[in-house]
Amino acid sequence: MEMALRLARWGLGKTAPNPSVGCVLVKDEKVVGRGWTGYGGRPHAEQIAIERAGKQTIDATAYITLEPCAHQGVTPPCVDTIIEAGISKAVIAVMDPDPRVSGRGIKKLETAGINVVTGVCADQALELNAGFFAKTTEERPFVTIKVASTADGFIATRNGDSKWITSPKSREWGHLLRSENDAVLVGIGTVLSDNPSLTVRLPGLYNTSPIRIVLDNNLRTPLGSKLVSSAKEVPTWLLTTKDLNSLAHRKMYEQSGVEIVSLGKVPSGQLGITNIFKVLAKRGVTRLLVEGGSKVTGSFLRSQLVDEIYWFRSGKILGENNISAVAELGIKDLANAPRFILKERKLIVDETLEVYKRK
Amino acid sequence: MEMALRLARWGLGKTAPNPSVGCVLVKDEKVVGRGWTGYGGRPHAEQIAIERAGKQTIDATAYITLEPCAHQGVTPPCVDTIIEAGISKAVIAVMDPDPRVSGRGIKKLETAGINVVTGVCADQALELNAGFFAKTTEERPFVTIKVASTADGFIATRNGDSKWITSPKSREWGHLLRSENDAVLVGIGTVLSDNPSLTVRLPGLYNTSPIRIVLDNNLRTPLGSKLVSSAKEVPTWLLTTKDLNSLAHRKMYEQSGVEIVSLGKVPSGQLGITNIFKVLAKRGVTRLLVEGGSKVTGSFLRSQLVDEIYWFRSGKILGENNISAVAELGIKDLANAPRFILKERKLIVDETLEVYKRK
Repeated sequence: MEMALRLARWGLGKTAPNPSVGCVLVKDEKVVGRGWTGYGGRPHAEQIAIERAGKQTIDATAYITLEPCAHQGVTPPCVDTIIEAGISKAVIAVMDPDPRVSGRGIKKLETAGINVVTGVCADQALELNAGFFAKTTEERPFVTIKVASTADGFIATRNGDSKWITSPKSREWGHLLRSENDAVLVGIGTVLSDNPSLTVRLPGLYNTSPIRIVLDNNLRTPLGSKLVSSAKEVPTWLLTTKDLNSLAHRKMYEQSGVEIVSLGKVPSGQLGITNIFKVLAKRGVTRLLVEGGSKVTGSFLRSQLVDEIYWFRSGKILGENNISAVAELGIKDLANAPRFILKERKLIVDETLEVYKRK
Repeated sequence: MEMALRLARWGLGKTAPNPSVGCVLVKDEKVVGRGWTGYGGRPHAEQIAIERAGKQTIDATAYITLEPCAHQGVTPPCVDTIIEAGISKAVIAVMDPDPRVSGRGIKKLETAGINVVTGVCADQALELNAGFFAKTTEERPFVTIKVASTADGFIATRNGDSKWITSPKSREWGHLLRSENDAVLVGIGTVLSDNPSLTVRLPGLYNTSPIRIVLDNNLRTPLGSKLVSSAKEVPTWLLTTKDLNSLAHRKMYEQSGVEIVSLGKVPSGQLGITNIFKVLAKRGVTRLLVEGGSKVTGSFLRSQLVDEIYWFRSGKILGENNISAVAELGIKDLANAPRFILKERKLIVDETLEVYKRK
């Protein structure tokens, strides 16, 4: 199962709106087939593994990170493929939360006489599929915030100088993080001050850039920005609460390949985090990476729907009166401060990556 | 030698103005004697080890973390004790920087026919003795800054609420750090807002509290503060640039056991970090722990004479407009930011201790 989980991890950020699944077939204590979900969600892991195993699937055991599908979608149901292949035992990490599947896949396998075991490495599988589960059951993506700061928590000098807070190696890790997400989101302030490209620029992973999303209520993203000029290669969405018809230069964005996404009206006139989540989940975004700046990070933290923080930290010190990682939260006493749990730490040469998860 | 270094480490913060030394005697591949510098600097490590070994010192090898003393001080010179004990070989980590000793101890041993090897584990020994070396050669203590902050670098809310940024376990580590320093220093602001006791409150280490030093130019430390009321048990110094005779309530402090230390006039009217260092070194402080607040931390960082930072970090997040770990440093671009190198990281339950050293 651990091998299957590792295979599935490769697909993170590349299979939306589908989950990333891993499948390992074992016969006589030997691995006879391996598969993981293809780019865009197809083909399914089970189909690849069975195809690779050829005739050796008969009486084999299948280790699968998620309950196989039982419904006819774009591809035929995986349970049928498994039954036809003559597999005698299926070890499944977790059940599918999709109401079209949940429990039905397992039932169909059992009816066909296959020995089914569930719950093996369930915790890891839940974590792996957190984005797919959030989208399916909570109408929101799994949200990760990325911060790159000095030791004392600043992301830029008061003049906006942020090049570079962290080392090239830490920034490469940041690119890897992008490749594991379906979409990356920034505020218009970051676009105007940094002109970022938000792509994955790691050898071999150029084609794994996430959808780029800008919270840009008044469509101020410059037509000459890196985002707009590369929008035909990498999907780029501008999110607004405005009525699309009233947006004068909307056409010019669309000719560049940029998509304007209407969030509909929200009471406060603000973008509304919950509303953003709904729209993104509907559009199939299961894993969202929020890359700042401090106002956007603050808004998301206030929403209390941040699942993880990836905090890259260098040994530089700036001292107060510079730009904080997180904008004003209005917290007056420590008991009310958002609290995260340190889940993992990595040493990146002489810098640190801290991974926090929601308490 | 590694055992000797470990023995010496126990004495850190407890032997000033003397260095903390470790000594291990080995004969026929067996340890026959161990010693480390006593509280207050006496007895010396070599004398303890030789006494413990009894008759087994003849033809033994001595592993010593610092060149043994050759001059008559309060105790007789250790080299004489070593020669008289019939030790045949001495392995010494580093030479003593004290001009009364440097090289002479080794020479005397060699003249007596003892085989001397130097430079074994020299780096670790230099680090261990950093305070003693700084005091002897640079007229300043080894300076460690302690910070306890949220993930985003704040040490208190805007209202001054700092109880508690970090967990009880992290605070226990902070006490251990105090016990390894000769003195702990805070600004008057911290005394007024937090009324700290700055002692070591760990079972078995109550008697290892460092000297407590307050930068208190106008003698504003309250007579009813924890520091003043415990000044007869734990030495407490108030540092001022003022003329002592002009200080009206000086007598009342002194009756409580508080010592008023005059720094002499400095041009700017400020306390002057370099001047503070000189006065402390002269008074035998070899290892100084600076515990804030943010203004004091900022001043020390600006002096560029901070050797290490112990940064305790919790998973709480406060957001901007709270009290930063480091006050305004006046840095306009990142290239000029002080930069520290991450030397060590410890996980303290779900919090982090980062140890940075000067680049």
